[in-house]
Amino acid sequence: MHEKLYLEDLYVGQKFKSRDHQLDAAQIIAYAQQFDPQVFHLDPEAAKHSFFQGLAASGWHTASISMRLVTESIPLADGVIGGGMEELAWPQPTRPDDALHVESEIVEIIPSQSKPNRAMVRVLCETKNQRGEVLQRFRPKMISFKRPMA
Amino acid sequence: MHEKLYLEDLYVGQKFKSRDHQLDAAQIIAYAQQFDPQVFHLDPEAAKHSFFQGLAASGWHTASISMRLVTESIPLADGVIGGGMEELAWPQPTRPDDALHVESEIVEIIPSQSKPNRAMVRVLCETKNQRGEVLQRFRPKMISFKRPMA
Repeated sequence: MHEKLYLEDLYVGQKFKSRDHQLDAAQIIAYAQQFDPQVFHLDPEAAKHSFFQGLAASGWHTASISMRLVTESIPLADGVIGGGMEELAWPQPTRPDDALHVESEIVEIIPSQSKPNRAMVRVLCETKNQRGEVLQRFRPKMISFKRPMA
Repeated sequence: MHEKLYLEDLYVGQKFKSRDHQLDAAQIIAYAQQFDPQVFHLDPEAAKHSFFQGLAASGWHTASISMRLVTESIPLADGVIGGGMEELAWPQPTRPDDALHVESEIVEIIPSQSKPNRAMVRVLCETKNQRGEVLQRFRPKMISFKRPMA
């Protein structure tokens, strides 16, 4: 288990790396049936004749797996809480044989003006596959809290 | 069923509205167990003492439901294919009793310089609940294709 991190433990340039998550066609299809039921996410054969030229994960599936890996690899003491993304891009499709991991780096820490016990932490994250290809690039804004007074 | 839309059918200012999706605690917890296993998305009782002061859906769950509603309500002939978001924000938490719908509007259509049969379509989407409160604001860039030659 990681040590839990408070605001005092964070610094610009701090890096985090997640474990690998092995994807497969069944996971891609299960997510798509529920949230993104389009032929190129559902049917490996029909997908060959689509824009993606083969089965591809929904971008939101890649994002969902990435969130799981972020929650595991950035051990903020009060949890990973974000108000949104400054950027979310899928430079190339996620494929059934991909093993995904997320690399994150803190780029800025902005103390709250009104609430002295917290800050907004700007993070750059990249989801990569086993060949180091970037499948998702995202820049979340997370809230971090100071260690509670004893 | 909607008519399928090609690039020639799209125009700036065109609006789309989805059906409602009724959320509940079981859906929130099931998504969180798989993709965002944090206490404020998993345990209604413990969530009361968290930042969210009650059970809240993962932002990525709101995003996933929103994608389903977008695929149903923007009937692009070749599917909803996007390379990313120019913005993704969750102005307030999504709650178990929320009924979500998505309102979308085309804000710009940018013809491809290199591929004359396609364009990049910039869309502004808002996911709202039954009280009209904005739960998610996102600005996808979608690809649209011209009607094939006969």
